Amino acid sequence: MSQSLVPYVAVIFTSTLAFEHQEEYSQWAERMIDLAKTQPGFISIVSARDSETRFGISVSYFKDEESVKKWKAVHEHQEAQKLGKEKFYSEYSVKVAKVYREY
Amino acid sequence: MSQSLVPYVAVIFTSTLAFEHQEEYSQWAERMIDLAKTQPGFISIVSARDSETRFGISVSYFKDEESVKKWKAVHEHQEAQKLGKEKFYSEYSVKVAKVYREY
Repeated sequence: MSQSLVPYVAVIFTSTLAFEHQEEYSQWAERMIDLAKTQPGFISIVSARDSETRFGISVSYFKDEESVKKWKAVHEHQEAQKLGKEKFYSEYSVKVAKVYREY
Repeated sequence: MSQSLVPYVAVIFTSTLAFEHQEEYSQWAERMIDLAKTQPGFISIVSARDSETRFGISVSYFKDEESVKKWKAVHEHQEAQKLGKEKFYSEYSVKVAKVYREY
């Protein structure tokens, strides 16, 4: 993204991984990143996780609000969200924001 | 943040640490987090870094754009930004966004 695309939408997802199901989580996480990349309006995604605390941040960028809503409703993604809530994360949060400046 | 404060401002900072100066970086990073927490309008900050790739994401939240601009201009923070650019990071990016939904 050398040319600025502002405004666009950022989905800021933070989570702490539970101790269990880590291998199953990794497979789902990888699959979801691959699937996100194929969605209309998808721009990019960045992720980092601290291996000691298991706390991680992912920020995915989409062209607009409509793209975010469509991605949230994709069947396999909904399944992943359910598993995340029930099994993979001890806590998580989602914030949706409009990027208006970047450098 | 159990009660929603939307809208507020998110500063999404991504960086990859250079191989050198890591101890000096850690001291500066810790100091900057402590200093950010004392700024007017500061809400919270979250950070995660992958120890293998050295890629990290920090998101700091402020009440409004004015608070972000004031924090960016704090003398010691400017010194840190200069050091980051020249010594600590092999690459970095900053995006400023307005959070309008959270759950």
